[in-house]
Amino acid sequence: MADCAFDVAGIGNAIVDVLAHADDAELQALGLEKGVMTLIDAERAEAIYARMGPGIECSGGSAANSMAGIAALGGKAAYIGKVRADQLGQVFRHDLAAQGVVFETEAAADGAPTARCLILVTPDAQRTMQTYLGACVALGPADIDPLIVANAQVTYLEGYLWDPPQAKAAFLAAARIAHDAGRKVALSLSDPFCVGRHREEFLELLSHHVDILFANEAEITALYQCDFDSAVRQVRAHCDIAALTRGARGSLVVEGGHVWVQGAETVTQVVDTTGAGDLYAAGFLYGLTQGRSLGVCARLGGLCAAEILSHVGARPEANLAELVAQTTLLTV
Amino acid sequence: MADCAFDVAGIGNAIVDVLAHADDAELQALGLEKGVMTLIDAERAEAIYARMGPGIECSGGSAANSMAGIAALGGKAAYIGKVRADQLGQVFRHDLAAQGVVFETEAAADGAPTARCLILVTPDAQRTMQTYLGACVALGPADIDPLIVANAQVTYLEGYLWDPPQAKAAFLAAARIAHDAGRKVALSLSDPFCVGRHREEFLELLSHHVDILFANEAEITALYQCDFDSAVRQVRAHCDIAALTRGARGSLVVEGGHVWVQGAETVTQVVDTTGAGDLYAAGFLYGLTQGRSLGVCARLGGLCAAEILSHVGARPEANLAELVAQTTLLTV
Repeated sequence: MADCAFDVAGIGNAIVDVLAHADDAELQALGLEKGVMTLIDAERAEAIYARMGPGIECSGGSAANSMAGIAALGGKAAYIGKVRADQLGQVFRHDLAAQGVVFETEAAADGAPTARCLILVTPDAQRTMQTYLGACVALGPADIDPLIVANAQVTYLEGYLWDPPQAKAAFLAAARIAHDAGRKVALSLSDPFCVGRHREEFLELLSHHVDILFANEAEITALYQCDFDSAVRQVRAHCDIAALTRGARGSLVVEGGHVWVQGAETVTQVVDTTGAGDLYAAGFLYGLTQGRSLGVCARLGGLCAAEILSHVGARPEANLAELVAQTTLLTV
Repeated sequence: MADCAFDVAGIGNAIVDVLAHADDAELQALGLEKGVMTLIDAERAEAIYARMGPGIECSGGSAANSMAGIAALGGKAAYIGKVRADQLGQVFRHDLAAQGVVFETEAAADGAPTARCLILVTPDAQRTMQTYLGACVALGPADIDPLIVANAQVTYLEGYLWDPPQAKAAFLAAARIAHDAGRKVALSLSDPFCVGRHREEFLELLSHHVDILFANEAEITALYQCDFDSAVRQVRAHCDIAALTRGARGSLVVEGGHVWVQGAETVTQVVDTTGAGDLYAAGFLYGLTQGRSLGVCARLGGLCAAEILSHVGARPEANLAELVAQTTLLTV
């Protein structure tokens, strides 16, 4: 691809994560379904937070996690998303900037506070997420900086953007700018329930606006409403590249008639699955924008996902560039 | 001691910690001295934060960490401290409540924001702390709830309270209420530089207002300006009980002519020393208020300190009560 100011521009819901440990009984008492992301309003967020254990706060947001990962790998990443001008908004902005991600979307001066995601991590390392979208609902087409999108090799959009109503228009505006500039558009399906909420629109998006798709097994089968193998067959026709993750079974990359199968990296102890999909996308897109083969992209994705599984939180703790340098992935 | 509503009431600076990894070169570039706590103003806090890596936020504050530890052990703890009515203030309040600590001090409706401590954790697990006191400067005698202090077996005060000017008066008011009700007063010296700032006043406090002293080696030698052995001899005359911690060498408890020496617990990997002294005090005071011998108190202190050394952050992650139950400490 052409020389660009940015490797990837990510657009998503700008969210601060609040993580606390919980057991299955606590999930049940709160009426929460394990492993999924549920949208909640301010009142429900208050009620759940009041019953959650002591937490730690760290910046999150699916596409933002991916951009942090790309920057940690040494890539050039930009982010577009909406926070409120409040303390958590400052935290979110600081953490992206400190990672080297360009984030210049103006904060909302009033309205709902910065979004937060209440994440209950169970002893089996599953995360159950309750998202209060807050200021994210204010993201609109005017926030899409055409200079950033047109100058990024890939514009990466999270499926969660389909939840706040105005963000859809922002999403489509970004896809149009990217394609007009000859760039690629990538989409993550985000969550099987997100797919459930927007299935028809996602199928339409895939057919007309998306070049590269990221999905896990639950998401792709929810999209095509069939088993995994049938979904793999169908997705070929809908986008150029599909990177499909399967948890401990690794990932599978589909491009036209070709399929790459990649086993998962070994993880000594899976502590928290929050952000694993986001970091897979980071590694994959970093490889892709460095002109690497799809097999190498899949391995980079798996490597980054493994790092995030080994600790609490969805932003990398280890130096990802060093981690990759310890392999021979980018030296061959 | 008499049956009380609370085992311990802690009074301190209510602070949210912002932790980030850093290396020695970064500390040098910021002009920071490793391992100590420095007070900074809002402007300096902005400047350091802007140069810090991505962080995680979690509730901190020395005495608050200790109260969280006591509650996690199954003790009855209360806390008095001042946050602002802002997002970080809500986080601080939530985290104490979620741990079962009673915290009813009214938040400041205006003025400076909730205090934060910018903590740089180096690969040697040392923490270098920059504290912006923010709303803590608003803590005054009117915030001392006499019902709480009079009904706590021990009132625990952090030396850091001597930094914000009004808090001294609050400190002395609390000590008076506690003693009038026949309760004990404990003090932590907090930090050698804190001792340096307030040495004469701390000596005066010790002679007249403090029954139980917590200090590490650097703090107690800074107080008496002599070597450790001489400091141990001098402290006998100044308070009933002194619990002196010595890092990897364990701790030493002095009561009149008696001395208990306790080796440190084994810690597989020291990740972050933030809060080790606070959790030692938690374990010790929990034992003391359960009527345990000073030797057992020292071991409980060491056990809790070891837990906090094994992870990032200054509040317990493990179930401390279970950890203690796995020993025979409280069953004999």
